[in-house]
Amino acid sequence: MVRVVIVGGGAAGASAAARARRLDPSAEVVLIERGSMITHAPCGMPYAIGGIVKSHEELMTYSPEEFEKERNIKVLIRTAVVDVDVDKRVVVVKRGESTEKIAWDKLVIATGAKPLVPKIPGVELKGILTMRHPDEVPHLKGHLEKAKTVAVVGGGYIGVEMAEVLLEMGKRVLLFEMFDQVLPAALDPDVAAIVAEEMKSRGVELHLGEKVVEFKGSDHVNKVVTEKGEYQVDEVVLAVGVRPDVDLAVRAGAKLGETGAVYVNEYMETTVPDVYAAGDVAEKVHRITGRRVWIPLAPTANKEGQVAGGNAVKGRVLKFPGVVGTAVTKFYDLYIARTGLGEKEAAQLGFKVQSSLIKARTKAHYMPNASPVHVKLIAEESTGRILGAQIVGKSQVVAAYADIMAVTIQSGYTLSDLFFSDLGYMPDTAPVWHPLIVAARVLSKGRL
Amino acid sequence: MVRVVIVGGGAAGASAAARARRLDPSAEVVLIERGSMITHAPCGMPYAIGGIVKSHEELMTYSPEEFEKERNIKVLIRTAVVDVDVDKRVVVVKRGESTEKIAWDKLVIATGAKPLVPKIPGVELKGILTMRHPDEVPHLKGHLEKAKTVAVVGGGYIGVEMAEVLLEMGKRVLLFEMFDQVLPAALDPDVAAIVAEEMKSRGVELHLGEKVVEFKGSDHVNKVVTEKGEYQVDEVVLAVGVRPDVDLAVRAGAKLGETGAVYVNEYMETTVPDVYAAGDVAEKVHRITGRRVWIPLAPTANKEGQVAGGNAVKGRVLKFPGVVGTAVTKFYDLYIARTGLGEKEAAQLGFKVQSSLIKARTKAHYMPNASPVHVKLIAEESTGRILGAQIVGKSQVVAAYADIMAVTIQSGYTLSDLFFSDLGYMPDTAPVWHPLIVAARVLSKGRL
Repeated sequence: MVRVVIVGGGAAGASAAARARRLDPSAEVVLIERGSMITHAPCGMPYAIGGIVKSHEELMTYSPEEFEKERNIKVLIRTAVVDVDVDKRVVVVKRGESTEKIAWDKLVIATGAKPLVPKIPGVELKGILTMRHPDEVPHLKGHLEKAKTVAVVGGGYIGVEMAEVLLEMGKRVLLFEMFDQVLPAALDPDVAAIVAEEMKSRGVELHLGEKVVEFKGSDHVNKVVTEKGEYQVDEVVLAVGVRPDVDLAVRAGAKLGETGAVYVNEYMETTVPDVYAAGDVAEKVHRITGRRVWIPLAPTANKEGQVAGGNAVKGRVLKFPGVVGTAVTKFYDLYIARTGLGEKEAAQLGFKVQSSLIKARTKAHYMPNASPVHVKLIAEESTGRILGAQIVGKSQVVAAYADIMAVTIQSGYTLSDLFFSDLGYMPDTAPVWHPLIVAARVLSKGRL
Repeated sequence: MVRVVIVGGGAAGASAAARARRLDPSAEVVLIERGSMITHAPCGMPYAIGGIVKSHEELMTYSPEEFEKERNIKVLIRTAVVDVDVDKRVVVVKRGESTEKIAWDKLVIATGAKPLVPKIPGVELKGILTMRHPDEVPHLKGHLEKAKTVAVVGGGYIGVEMAEVLLEMGKRVLLFEMFDQVLPAALDPDVAAIVAEEMKSRGVELHLGEKVVEFKGSDHVNKVVTEKGEYQVDEVVLAVGVRPDVDLAVRAGAKLGETGAVYVNEYMETTVPDVYAAGDVAEKVHRITGRRVWIPLAPTANKEGQVAGGNAVKGRVLKFPGVVGTAVTKFYDLYIARTGLGEKEAAQLGFKVQSSLIKARTKAHYMPNASPVHVKLIAEESTGRILGAQIVGKSQVVAAYADIMAVTIQSGYTLSDLFFSDLGYMPDTAPVWHPLIVAARVLSKGRL
């Protein structure tokens, strides 16, 4: 009987546990989680803070009790793994005041990511909040509800989503981003400008290209200091990025990759025998370039967990093929999605690229409720191979446009392949020339 | 200077004309249309009849004048092509009472499809309406506005869409379909049952498995007679299907394929030199099976027109790769989409298939406004190759799910390829396990 110990009860860990159990009913499967919730959805935190989701407990898919009862997985919550001995095959855990050892035959490290906290003066003040785990929601909500003015530091996914939530909570919102655009890791500047326009029109005070250098306050923060000025605030949401939580993996002797995340092969094996890593803690392979990247997102974590859990009990039965960098966010009713490489990113990687940015509609021109949609395509100039897409528009379908593009990119489509794709049409779902097909035609510069 | 004559001003013809003009500025391009509108959208007719679209003229993308002025294309409206002489390279046209000959070097036949009118007693009565061309909208609207009870004969796309429109116009609606399900050409019975349930709950009196055998009335129809009964009605919408309008192609000596539509190769060439066919009049190749099919839809017509027009002036510069049968319709807020082969269809073609039908949601479970979505996947049992998908749900994203599946099917994806596709996620756009990925996992029967 194999004993599989999984550290981390989030997307990757829970998937690994469920998969191991499913493939090997006789295995002993132990899931260890530092917090109080498992199968939790940190991506839903902004909406739980804002009250769109009534309770942060709704962010759980399964309670620990359900997971134990229905899946026969031993779940240890409020349990921290403080050490690992690979030779003796044990992890050392701390629950409350007691410490114990848990033996494993296979270890899956799914410790996730943690917020990046820049080393600037005052960053340790009260009222400077980071977001990691859904069980922190009541604490964060308590802080933010009292505030009148909130600074969001960082214009990435969390920053954009929190800006909406805070405005809806009635706050004055100042957003600081050191790059001169929002969503710098996700979007090219031309597409980001559309998002920034919407944010400003809704009332976000956008400070782009403005790096925060200090926080001031006696005990609790009351000022954000940037290179350009000082701003009075009541609370700060610090969302400047995340980094992989590799402490346990390092203790296990696993090699880290050039991205700083745990190096894994396609079976989700680390360099240490019988030790797997999955989810945000692990590096991924980019399917366009073959390069190792670190793009920590929940759907990837789920699939990697599935692969790690299955392989832990059955040996190399599943392979994870990598990612193309599909990601989506929203600001009010403006949906923002991207996949593949950005234009600048592609150029930096040595591709000679061309791009188009078109404006179209999500329905036939004569139908009511057609929304404008902006589509940017990036392709390799010599071959027409599609490298990336960025889509912004006031309809949920924008997210699915990115999914369509993700599949074309995974499959090595050229602009011609996309143009001739059999995308559906009726007046209420698309124009007869689908926006993605129009974008392909425009970018073909007369060839299509 | 080449002279290109295009017969038919709909999707295929207008695209062919525009493309020929674009690729050869010196060509003489003549577009001949029987009706009064070009670049028209018959797919929008139900919504113009119902008043959601204010005027049927909005269904035009370009007026004949705009097309002439902005594109330098000679447009002849209200002009019927009554004959063709391939040896002399002329078409004979009738405008009002006058007949004239127009010479061509290249001829593109884009005569489209026309409604099928079954040879049953009474079918010639007044008040039995078919739908083909947007310029008939005022006539149809006039008839239907006065009616209290309307029979829709045929439960295909037009029948389903007209049922909604007629209910919204305040009519009592009886829908007759000879097969025992709605959308028999599009959906498998299990998915069609979901649509039928919605139609009934909105008030459509569905008569499935009930063939209409006669219409009664003295001058104007007042009764529909089926194998099972007689029904008092005021008007009838006859929507039992369409067939290719091949008259001109036959006169030109072009071979028809086994489907009854015009046989064309991937360059949209007919068997007659310098004569092309594009759009609903032409056969298509199915990309899954390589078989010739007749699936007349506007996006295909547009692309085929593009290929025919380009090749007419430049020789074989573009190839049309065929279709996978993506189609979409809606009934109120229930969107209905499909692509690939149906389960029965695949079995009839010799595939040993397996299928799954799952129910999921379009957003994370904790988000407001998540709609249920039903996903059916059909795959080849031995290889896991995906053959078809049918999706029904109360969100426009359903249509885009079919587009995602169309691309996977075109690309020969297996269930595993789909499962590992990098589809995006945030709580407001999808569950973290995307419905399509869940469907792939379920259908893999434990392999994923």
